[in-house]
Amino acid sequence: MASDSEYYTFGPHKIHPKFIFYTTNLSYAMVNLRPVLPGHVLVIPKREVKRFGDLNADEICDLWLTTQLVSGKLESYHNASSLTLNIQDGPEAGQSVPHVHIHIIPRKSSDFARNDDIYDAMDENDRALMQHIDLDEKRMDRGFEEMAQEADEYTKLFL
Amino acid sequence: MASDSEYYTFGPHKIHPKFIFYTTNLSYAMVNLRPVLPGHVLVIPKREVKRFGDLNADEICDLWLTTQLVSGKLESYHNASSLTLNIQDGPEAGQSVPHVHIHIIPRKSSDFARNDDIYDAMDENDRALMQHIDLDEKRMDRGFEEMAQEADEYTKLFL
Repeated sequence: MASDSEYYTFGPHKIHPKFIFYTTNLSYAMVNLRPVLPGHVLVIPKREVKRFGDLNADEICDLWLTTQLVSGKLESYHNASSLTLNIQDGPEAGQSVPHVHIHIIPRKSSDFARNDDIYDAMDENDRALMQHIDLDEKRMDRGFEEMAQEADEYTKLFL
Repeated sequence: MASDSEYYTFGPHKIHPKFIFYTTNLSYAMVNLRPVLPGHVLVIPKREVKRFGDLNADEICDLWLTTQLVSGKLESYHNASSLTLNIQDGPEAGQSVPHVHIHIIPRKSSDFARNDDIYDAMDENDRALMQHIDLDEKRMDRGFEEMAQEADEYTKLFL
């Protein structure tokens, strides 16, 4: 786990280590500013690249093995029964933050009135990240403590 | 490449080898019955498992390395600029065919009036696969020859 003085980057943003609940040599998992459902988190390669095609083989394997592990833990933790796993790879696919990231969203029966409304909500989440997540900003959609506490809960899943 | 007498399975369905344009030891890529956009294809682990969490590490790495290769080729071939990469992992996430599959969809500016309308279209595609793809069925949304010809074009991208 990162020390408090060490920051991970997510595109142009610095992410506070308290928001990060799992790391490997090549990837990290963070809680979200505006989760569209409980347990909606992001898995991100540490190296900042814009497109999935820019990742090397080690990074791809690590990113998706991390996603398998993290998504399984969060599906159980939130008593969910399915998962939405998505990469919006490039601006024409809805990518707002220009740094590859996998959306993990635990799903349950009837969690959205229309199953696919979740993607509109994901886009809104990405826009919020783009606009509000910088630590310098006073404005935060969720409080620092709430996000840090959620990350702390998830950290325990991997002990 | 599979011989004409060899079939791959996709959930309960047998897939004709002429619809398959790229294979590895552990994965295969096939054209779609109702592509929601040009170049919409599926990458599928050869071993039939329902959930992403059921795949082993070798299968995960192979599946996503294959997806990186295939999606890059198809993005270029269709003069696209982004990619939608998606797994609907379980029925509550919209999975219709109970066999893990990655949707690859090359994206362009304004290909859908609303960016996320693509997910409704993907679901429709999955339902169509579920209902109509069996080779025994007379009814096919696209003709056998049209699909086989598209797969043939894509096969050449990997020579």
